[in-house]
Amino acid sequence: MDRARVGLKDVARLAGVSVKTVSNVVNGYIHVTPATRTRVEAAIKELNYRPNLSARNLRQGRTGIIALAVPELDTPYFAELAKFVVAAAEERGLTVLIDHTGASREREQLVAEGFRARLIDGLILSPLALTPEDLSARMDDTPMVLLGERVYEGPADHIVVDNVAAAKEATLHLASLGRTRIAAIGSQDTVAAESSRLRLEGYRRALKEAGLPLDDRLVVPAEEYHRADGARAMAELLDSGAAPDAVFCFNDLLALGALRTLLERGLAVPGDVALAGFDDIEDGRYGTPTLTTISPDKRAIARQAVGLLAGRMAGTSGQAREFRVPYQLMIRESSGG
Amino acid sequence: MDRARVGLKDVARLAGVSVKTVSNVVNGYIHVTPATRTRVEAAIKELNYRPNLSARNLRQGRTGIIALAVPELDTPYFAELAKFVVAAAEERGLTVLIDHTGASREREQLVAEGFRARLIDGLILSPLALTPEDLSARMDDTPMVLLGERVYEGPADHIVVDNVAAAKEATLHLASLGRTRIAAIGSQDTVAAESSRLRLEGYRRALKEAGLPLDDRLVVPAEEYHRADGARAMAELLDSGAAPDAVFCFNDLLALGALRTLLERGLAVPGDVALAGFDDIEDGRYGTPTLTTISPDKRAIARQAVGLLAGRMAGTSGQAREFRVPYQLMIRESSGG
Repeated sequence: MDRARVGLKDVARLAGVSVKTVSNVVNGYIHVTPATRTRVEAAIKELNYRPNLSARNLRQGRTGIIALAVPELDTPYFAELAKFVVAAAEERGLTVLIDHTGASREREQLVAEGFRARLIDGLILSPLALTPEDLSARMDDTPMVLLGERVYEGPADHIVVDNVAAAKEATLHLASLGRTRIAAIGSQDTVAAESSRLRLEGYRRALKEAGLPLDDRLVVPAEEYHRADGARAMAELLDSGAAPDAVFCFNDLLALGALRTLLERGLAVPGDVALAGFDDIEDGRYGTPTLTTISPDKRAIARQAVGLLAGRMAGTSGQAREFRVPYQLMIRESSGG
Repeated sequence: MDRARVGLKDVARLAGVSVKTVSNVVNGYIHVTPATRTRVEAAIKELNYRPNLSARNLRQGRTGIIALAVPELDTPYFAELAKFVVAAAEERGLTVLIDHTGASREREQLVAEGFRARLIDGLILSPLALTPEDLSARMDDTPMVLLGERVYEGPADHIVVDNVAAAKEATLHLASLGRTRIAAIGSQDTVAAESSRLRLEGYRRALKEAGLPLDDRLVVPAEEYHRADGARAMAELLDSGAAPDAVFCFNDLLALGALRTLLERGLAVPGDVALAGFDDIEDGRYGTPTLTTISPDKRAIARQAVGLLAGRMAGTSGQAREFRVPYQLMIRESSGG
């Protein structure tokens, strides 16, 4: 069918819903049941329907551009997430510009204030430095959706993964292999370290549930979450005599760094030390051994974020809400999978 | 020293140059010798001088925002490059928004036309789909700097790495280990595949120089440059009976995929097959074995691109120029380093 001729009506007919419902889905309103949304999205896809957003944007004085602001673009997790956000936005006729904040409070603030010049219609922000107070004090009224653990009960819609439950599941998996000296790499004691705190909490709960003692020597901090930090932390752990037989790392980059140290020291993974990470970045699927990890549904995060933002941009009002997206434990070679 | 009080004059005094020269460096003009530029940049750093660009921007009706448009953000090479561009721009008081084009011609065109709405003051574009004709026909006069091999002798300043020389050096290194069946992974026959063509040319020249015969069975195509493509290509190569004892992959992701296949098949790297890639992404420095690769100076690419762009934004006129940035062969474990 000729794309130019496909309208809301055609989508509504195929999906067996009202035109209003299709419009609600297209605009990302949240008052649509998942089943209906799925049906409408299938019809949109089948008919190759594209909302004519650029005309609407012009009429409404909009740019059709949203910003995605992340702390670190060269962290594969955020790079992969950015790709999904661009794809989800494209389906709605929106262009995404990506901002790399370097986790600087000043820069996160600049973004949250709409780059001063109202260049963007909406913002998806993954804050690491801004406080809830900063965000509440925000002067700009550009619609915003927050990602991650930094700000709860804030002034904006918020998308999270259940970090405690996910970390607990990963740790329990290591315990289920019969490992009793399970270490954790990635603890942090800065104020900003909300995900670290939650993942540590999940790790602790798992040990308790598995009847394993908590040993502080098995918990190693990491200043940042890069490969180099993981490699260093693993070396510390081995040198300390804590003798771990498994390690849960708070992200995959830490785990990949830790893996390198283990192999350099002649230890077998998972034979001597089993290993699990968090994020499910592509690197972990191609290393040797492949990496067991928690896989947050990045596509769902992106679609949810863009959908919510589009809804707010279209005028959805109401209290800020929190959405949890699913995750999955991927058992791979580093823990015997 | 108080940052607010540091001015061009202070920088000029410390660097022992004229105020005009400092201004030239700050504005990214190209008529400054490297030695002078280095001296001025050192003084800027020591004094923590920040050009007051936002005031100037406002006066000149500018946004202070430049765009960096890359084909794939979840390719570590571009993610790492983006980080350096953000840092280089920050030194000049510029904000970078990053656009992920997905190598779509339509989207590259949208970017090259300044997002229609003149949101940006300048653009750094790494085109994969646009033709030189597209770029010459560009209506928008937003200053632009091009990265990569897609467009030569185009209408804009252009930054490249010498792909032929780099690929030749990597291949000659493999030959220097006594390997005689050196394969290449990553050939492409689409029009857009300029880097692939140049790297293949370098590979061929190296074989010739080393006195090794060209064997077409040793050259394997890759549709895209991701890990999965490298894994697949390596499997093909092994199944074909071409019996390689070394492989030069046209980027690191291909090499990491190929490495996974080799280890899965029980082959030793570099014992049975030596391996080299291109890009020097962080993943390759932490894998086991670590990856030999060509390391383009990404920081230099970023600084050069932002400097040139700032110069054009400040009104530097004159013909479009081409700049070559240095690269280095990093010999690591995958070729016995």
